[in-house]
Amino acid sequence: MAAAPRLIDTDLHNDLAGPRELLPFLPKEWHQQWLEQGIGVGGKSWSAVGYIRKDVKPEKGGYPGSDPEFVLKDHMDRYGFDYAILTGNASMIGISLNYDPDYANAVASAHNDWQNEVWLKASPRYKGSILINHADPDAAVREIERLAGHPDIVQVMMCSASRTLFGQRFYHPIYEAAERHGLPVAIHPGNEGLGPTYPPTPSGYPTRYMEWQNIIPINYMSQVNSLVCEGVFEKFPKLKFVAIEGGISWLPHLMWRMDKNYKALRDTVPWLKKLPSEYIKEHVLLTTQPIEEPTQPQHLVDIINMCGAEDMVMFSSDYPHWDFDNPKMALASFPRELREKIAAKTAMDVYGLKEVVEGAGIGGVAG
Amino acid sequence: MAAAPRLIDTDLHNDLAGPRELLPFLPKEWHQQWLEQGIGVGGKSWSAVGYIRKDVKPEKGGYPGSDPEFVLKDHMDRYGFDYAILTGNASMIGISLNYDPDYANAVASAHNDWQNEVWLKASPRYKGSILINHADPDAAVREIERLAGHPDIVQVMMCSASRTLFGQRFYHPIYEAAERHGLPVAIHPGNEGLGPTYPPTPSGYPTRYMEWQNIIPINYMSQVNSLVCEGVFEKFPKLKFVAIEGGISWLPHLMWRMDKNYKALRDTVPWLKKLPSEYIKEHVLLTTQPIEEPTQPQHLVDIINMCGAEDMVMFSSDYPHWDFDNPKMALASFPRELREKIAAKTAMDVYGLKEVVEGAGIGGVAG
Repeated sequence: MAAAPRLIDTDLHNDLAGPRELLPFLPKEWHQQWLEQGIGVGGKSWSAVGYIRKDVKPEKGGYPGSDPEFVLKDHMDRYGFDYAILTGNASMIGISLNYDPDYANAVASAHNDWQNEVWLKASPRYKGSILINHADPDAAVREIERLAGHPDIVQVMMCSASRTLFGQRFYHPIYEAAERHGLPVAIHPGNEGLGPTYPPTPSGYPTRYMEWQNIIPINYMSQVNSLVCEGVFEKFPKLKFVAIEGGISWLPHLMWRMDKNYKALRDTVPWLKKLPSEYIKEHVLLTTQPIEEPTQPQHLVDIINMCGAEDMVMFSSDYPHWDFDNPKMALASFPRELREKIAAKTAMDVYGLKEVVEGAGIGGVAG
Repeated sequence: MAAAPRLIDTDLHNDLAGPRELLPFLPKEWHQQWLEQGIGVGGKSWSAVGYIRKDVKPEKGGYPGSDPEFVLKDHMDRYGFDYAILTGNASMIGISLNYDPDYANAVASAHNDWQNEVWLKASPRYKGSILINHADPDAAVREIERLAGHPDIVQVMMCSASRTLFGQRFYHPIYEAAERHGLPVAIHPGNEGLGPTYPPTPSGYPTRYMEWQNIIPINYMSQVNSLVCEGVFEKFPKLKFVAIEGGISWLPHLMWRMDKNYKALRDTVPWLKKLPSEYIKEHVLLTTQPIEEPTQPQHLVDIINMCGAEDMVMFSSDYPHWDFDNPKMALASFPRELREKIAAKTAMDVYGLKEVVEGAGIGGVAG
């Protein structure tokens, strides 16, 4: 009898062994640009020194996270993940910030074909994302249509940084397509303040990496606020929005402030039919990594409980990045019922992962 | 025997009865510009319709908040405030965002002289702020030197929106002067996204007032993050920083994220000697209005307790703005010891208000 998954990683960065690995999937006219400029998104000042874990280099060489077989052994089996949602190279996720939409569309499509060929065929435990260029919604919709039928594709993914807040009408065709195909739309950080976006804070540019990294979640709050206020979840009532790697414990503040203002100002947003916090609870998912670590771990549980976020949070590891979370440590402090939801149950529902596939590891953490 | 204050309002917007009231305090060469353009800071798209309470118009006419005697009766006596910290016209606070530093400096000085003449002389229960133009730190320092000796001046004040994050070295002369005179530096919101600042979110411009108002606190998080990461509180160990009207319950998230990153990345901020959250607890004050209102009021108390913020929070009313908080309602849910700190004790320490002055009302809420 098939068992239900017990541990799912919702943020595994599968990567290219090197830039040339993308070439078979990229039209020839873009090869030189790709090899010389990569994603070509300006601004790298806040990159951490030592961004990638040094202890997870594939045995046969290449970049950490670039060998599907090694990742199965080094990550999936080691920690007992039944499934992992692939999120690709963290820089490539930011392709939406390239100034040229044609190049961005081509790189996104190449990424997706490479993922499907090299990773989704390597193991049924890997599930894929459709990387889109959110700056060209028509092209993004075509990419969703092209790949949504793939049996191992489970979400649409785009970078969290943008020139226009995600609630605005410009993006609605993307949500329409994602909702129609039953795919959640996920955002991933790391490009805040780069390319043609605005500074990472309303008062300008942080100086060092730590300061920039600390403050990334304010962009997540801004995007969630925009999605709710613009009525996206009334217009697309089945849409799920996955906020990867953007923090959790800002939820009470945002929910309470939005709900209070809604009570006074709801005549200015007449398309909203219920409290903003209700839309957030029903439509927004958050991933755990980097897990917040109060001195008393119970405080994070309290935060989740006080805003009714028990069904909003999914485990993620961020393998192979420096701030990787080990599920055995990150999940240890949650009470059993909540831990099981975070470890796998919520992700099962969001991504439609009903059963453990043959050969999958045993979810050793949530059991 | 003199009694200790029992209720202090840390955000009372005293206002001009009209623009002409400033003229006696403003050099003649700026009169026409002031009468024609006011503060002259571009961008007003997110202003609320009905921003000022309609029920608090002075009996003798003029703008709400413009009559010191009426405010004593209508606000101070009605709710039993022993003292109020004056914060002036909310738009004028944004004078730092005028493109012309000479005009901004002149308007700030005129504001301060008007406050001292019209308001501080009207009652010893009013305590004043030195409004500065933070975009010209040398001039701001001169203004602090000019007025810090006034016995009823208790803080330096500037708008929270800025072109450069407040931790950066550009602003350090302001902090040096404020610390030397024992004056806290306060910031006040309302100008996020206006004039020469950046958009109010890292991903651009909100559409409507509610969305903009919801998200203002992200700028506060950014400024506090910058102040701590840049080592301002190591360099100025007696400096207090008052974050007016920027929310409270984002503290756990910001503290936990900063502390976690500090543990991994402290070699990049070697000037920090302790956890970021410790600097926040020792140096940052927050005001209550608009008080966050979870369905279960105990949750806000829990948030304050879980991040050790019991001595960080001070009551404020925001009189006469639309989102005014009545202290009888806003303070009702706090347990006694915490309520007394929020109502008056913390503000007494921060602003050096030791005794109730003769004729002051009786703090009816905290008793």
